[in-house]
Amino acid sequence: MAGKLVSMRNLKFLLYEVFDVCTLTEYDYYKQFNRKTFDMFLDAGLELGTKLMQPVYEEMDRKPPELVDGVVKVHPQVRRILKEFGEGGWIGARFPVEFDGEQLPLQILSACNLIFCAANFSASAFPGMNSGVAHLITSYGDDNLKEKYVAKLLSGQWQGTMAMTEPQAGSSLTDLNTMAEPTDEGFYKITGNKIFISAGDHDCVDNVVHLMLAKIKGGPPGVKGISLFVVPKKRFDENGKLVLNDIVVSQVFHKMGYRGTPTTELSIGENDDCRGYLVGDEYKGLSYMFQMMNEARIGVGAAAAATASAAYYAALEYSRERPQGRNIAAKDPLTPQVPIIEHSDVKRMLLFQKAVVEGSFSIVMQCSKYEDMLSVVSDDEEKEKYALLLDILTPVAKNYPSEMGVHSTSQSIQCFGGYGYCEDFPVEQYYRDMRIHPIHEGTTGIQGMDILGRKVLMKNGKAFSLFLEEVRKTIADARDCSELKIFAEELNNSIERLQEVTLHLIGIAQEKGPEYFLADATLYLELFGIITISWQWLLQSITVDKALQNELSASEYNFYQGKLYTCKYFFRYELPKIEGLAKRLMDKDPLTVEMEVNFFSD
Amino acid sequence: MAGKLVSMRNLKFLLYEVFDVCTLTEYDYYKQFNRKTFDMFLDAGLELGTKLMQPVYEEMDRKPPELVDGVVKVHPQVRRILKEFGEGGWIGARFPVEFDGEQLPLQILSACNLIFCAANFSASAFPGMNSGVAHLITSYGDDNLKEKYVAKLLSGQWQGTMAMTEPQAGSSLTDLNTMAEPTDEGFYKITGNKIFISAGDHDCVDNVVHLMLAKIKGGPPGVKGISLFVVPKKRFDENGKLVLNDIVVSQVFHKMGYRGTPTTELSIGENDDCRGYLVGDEYKGLSYMFQMMNEARIGVGAAAAATASAAYYAALEYSRERPQGRNIAAKDPLTPQVPIIEHSDVKRMLLFQKAVVEGSFSIVMQCSKYEDMLSVVSDDEEKEKYALLLDILTPVAKNYPSEMGVHSTSQSIQCFGGYGYCEDFPVEQYYRDMRIHPIHEGTTGIQGMDILGRKVLMKNGKAFSLFLEEVRKTIADARDCSELKIFAEELNNSIERLQEVTLHLIGIAQEKGPEYFLADATLYLELFGIITISWQWLLQSITVDKALQNELSASEYNFYQGKLYTCKYFFRYELPKIEGLAKRLMDKDPLTVEMEVNFFSD
Repeated sequence: MAGKLVSMRNLKFLLYEVFDVCTLTEYDYYKQFNRKTFDMFLDAGLELGTKLMQPVYEEMDRKPPELVDGVVKVHPQVRRILKEFGEGGWIGARFPVEFDGEQLPLQILSACNLIFCAANFSASAFPGMNSGVAHLITSYGDDNLKEKYVAKLLSGQWQGTMAMTEPQAGSSLTDLNTMAEPTDEGFYKITGNKIFISAGDHDCVDNVVHLMLAKIKGGPPGVKGISLFVVPKKRFDENGKLVLNDIVVSQVFHKMGYRGTPTTELSIGENDDCRGYLVGDEYKGLSYMFQMMNEARIGVGAAAAATASAAYYAALEYSRERPQGRNIAAKDPLTPQVPIIEHSDVKRMLLFQKAVVEGSFSIVMQCSKYEDMLSVVSDDEEKEKYALLLDILTPVAKNYPSEMGVHSTSQSIQCFGGYGYCEDFPVEQYYRDMRIHPIHEGTTGIQGMDILGRKVLMKNGKAFSLFLEEVRKTIADARDCSELKIFAEELNNSIERLQEVTLHLIGIAQEKGPEYFLADATLYLELFGIITISWQWLLQSITVDKALQNELSASEYNFYQGKLYTCKYFFRYELPKIEGLAKRLMDKDPLTVEMEVNFFSD
Repeated sequence: MAGKLVSMRNLKFLLYEVFDVCTLTEYDYYKQFNRKTFDMFLDAGLELGTKLMQPVYEEMDRKPPELVDGVVKVHPQVRRILKEFGEGGWIGARFPVEFDGEQLPLQILSACNLIFCAANFSASAFPGMNSGVAHLITSYGDDNLKEKYVAKLLSGQWQGTMAMTEPQAGSSLTDLNTMAEPTDEGFYKITGNKIFISAGDHDCVDNVVHLMLAKIKGGPPGVKGISLFVVPKKRFDENGKLVLNDIVVSQVFHKMGYRGTPTTELSIGENDDCRGYLVGDEYKGLSYMFQMMNEARIGVGAAAAATASAAYYAALEYSRERPQGRNIAAKDPLTPQVPIIEHSDVKRMLLFQKAVVEGSFSIVMQCSKYEDMLSVVSDDEEKEKYALLLDILTPVAKNYPSEMGVHSTSQSIQCFGGYGYCEDFPVEQYYRDMRIHPIHEGTTGIQGMDILGRKVLMKNGKAFSLFLEEVRKTIADARDCSELKIFAEELNNSIERLQEVTLHLIGIAQEKGPEYFLADATLYLELFGIITISWQWLLQSITVDKALQNELSASEYNFYQGKLYTCKYFFRYELPKIEGLAKRLMDKDPLTVEMEVNFFSD
């Protein structure tokens, strides 16, 4: 399998033309870079994705990890991937130079990450976790933790994990039971069970470093009692030698997709000999973890978009090559068949995929840009602005690509017809891999409550206002482009509708309380997502409109026309979906709150 | 695994309360039945499903058929299933007594079939194919074919198949290449290749009977040249002994789901020794095949609905039992967690599944009722009415359950969270199994062109008018029920919207031709489907409204309230989706027609 994974042209369009990443190099922090060095990263990223990761995509699925005599055996290529990601500086690419990092803008790294996830999402998870774990330790850990763990994680010699979920506490972190008992020896004794821990252990690393949420004995109940610990599989003994730290893998889950990464259950401290090391202050675990979690959420959106991209290009290639049927107006059976891409219904399916993929890429890149701006601006108000924009867009950037990615890969299968359902083509695997994304790092329902119950209201609606301001800026710019005027007005109407719906829901909150307010938060998020991606399409199209004023080569002309048609597609086919959502959200019948559980009896 | 598959209460509600199947027993053809005998069939069907089919559901997936030394090895339970379906009279249940059938109303058989498909769709396909093949032979075959093949198919000793698709002709039957060369010995010599033939061969039967489309040498090109043949794996030689008939299985496809049924590729007549026997007249193959095809399409809808049902009940059971989180208004971490079914967002997901499942069951039953009426009415106009209603509703009954079943099983997974993605629970398999339904027996795109390009227009729109009449009858009845008035008006507005959209599209057909007319046929079908299922929900709710006037036991009260809330759900959450669809369909920008293939370049 060596199909196209992403459009490099599109990545460069987003980076250099839409988000203009090169302006970052005017800041001190990024001054070592220029367009040429950015391009080198992109080329290297593509090389890594296509040579190291894509070739084992199918194999890692067909031979998933197994727990054999207590050892989690994963595909041997994982060792090479971690090594090359470590040695090549990819794991630490965004880290400041003091951690031996590259200080690479997140936008460039995100573009590379899209390639990696498109090539092999399971494989990308191993180095990806390391980056997040190391980032959290450098942000909140003391020097001792930094010294012991960061280099090993960034080099890919050890594996990092995020150990939150427990059997009795999936979405409800309040109910975590893993306990940390203080000692006077500089560590805590940890006991508990964790489930669904990605890369929770495997045989391609020498050690595993869990960032684990636990409750300190005697602390406050609920989320207020949660602290964050580094809990290694092997700890250093008094001689600096690594010894086992009483963590046992009790299960490797068998999954429908995302099968290359072992998803594990861990028993911790069964022999009362598991040591954990506090990160930062006691009882602040959740807020620390949320740094990683928010990154991870955008990372999920990126992974979903990337998988949808690989599936889309597979469908596109097939649609170009597969002859079937004739133009509906000219059905002479003696004429040759045409490739199915010539049928309007197939073009519609492809446009849908392209719209979801490139719209999702765009919102991921938009978030990366805000993140990059956070690294360079010093003004408090500006810092707050970018932080709030990231806050409100995180659930969208997680959820839109995840939910729509499921539909997009499903349409990729549909382009193949019966062949898409067979293992001969990769789309069935993309479809299976995709289905994890609306679940992990906070389900769709959790994201809905996050945006409506928290983000829209936070700081008196400041994040929401900033978001609207960003959209309005794009609308104003688009009004100057003759082809885009009509879409600018439609987006303007949509954000008015969004405000109307939001006010209506806030009214319900005041009148009837949080349960009624949040009952349809998932639908609200869907509405918010469609409008956000419309904004991103309009934003891209302003660049397109300018480019089309120039003399262009045939391939460039086709590229920009493709963008323009996909923007049209989004506004004609996708944006109208907000009508039905808004109708429901404005409707006052609280039937999901009021339906009694007993009514589900039969 | 022994989860609930379907609600027997719901099946009886549909059969006896909504569609009143017992009125059929007033006709001569069905006079041997009564409510008690119908109930016996249902009980026996449930027994068969739960005892014979459901226990091997997972195993048939995990150990899919293999081609070993030219033999297609399937799960050994298939032999028992065919035998019991044969001996129990299930395969021939709808056949008239002259074929040793039971003359069972299709409504009762459809209800049983929903149970079988919910228990194990792959397993149900084997006897299901036999029934369709035998029905076609009895309808159009001569006495010789009837005598030789029908009894063997109905007894389950032989396997029947529908052999249409070829590698170069998926949806485009025009391009079939399988050839039939006439001889003067009463048979044709067949040569060609067929792919995606379900149950195309296996080791649990003594012979396989292919109903095969082929073109007679020298006949007209395209679909007009297609004839239908019985082509057995083994034919009778001059001594009445079975000998091989030169058909080889060249491949068994490996699929994402629906893995228990072997999907095969056949090489036919490689040694110029394959004999086929013409069914009916030359060149009428396609119209004959469409009898089976139309049944098969409603069968696909039924299978999709059934799988969604099994997944829904798995999700419902889990949601009742899984404690997680608390009421959003009362978050004291010291109180116990509540089952997730108490969260509004989970109730919404369950209502969605229930609405799709029971709405789909209802439309399948509605079609079965029309079919049953066709067996008893003698008046030509009445016959035409039921035939036309079946014609126009077949693409809906195929497509709505298939497309929405994908979403419904996806929501079943979502109720389970991470566990839903693991093989420990059956929902991931339901999700994989489901994905075939929008593909086989005519893809969603084909169904869209069928309803808009053929069914809506046929006989000057008579089928469409009859459909609207049926819906209006329900609206009129619902206006008398105080709780349903508002929904009656909404459905009325919807069918007005549907007419408006239809007229608009017919205008486009006249103005710009078929390509523009049919470009969004898939969206039109989606719109049509949502309105049709709204109608079915309103129809059910009229019965519910009456029932709720009476004194009821707690369980009956809960059942009817569950129905009422699900109807409300459908009108509040699903019907509004037509807004976005109608907006697009009324919009004149023909962008999918006009987008050039080159614009997909990058």
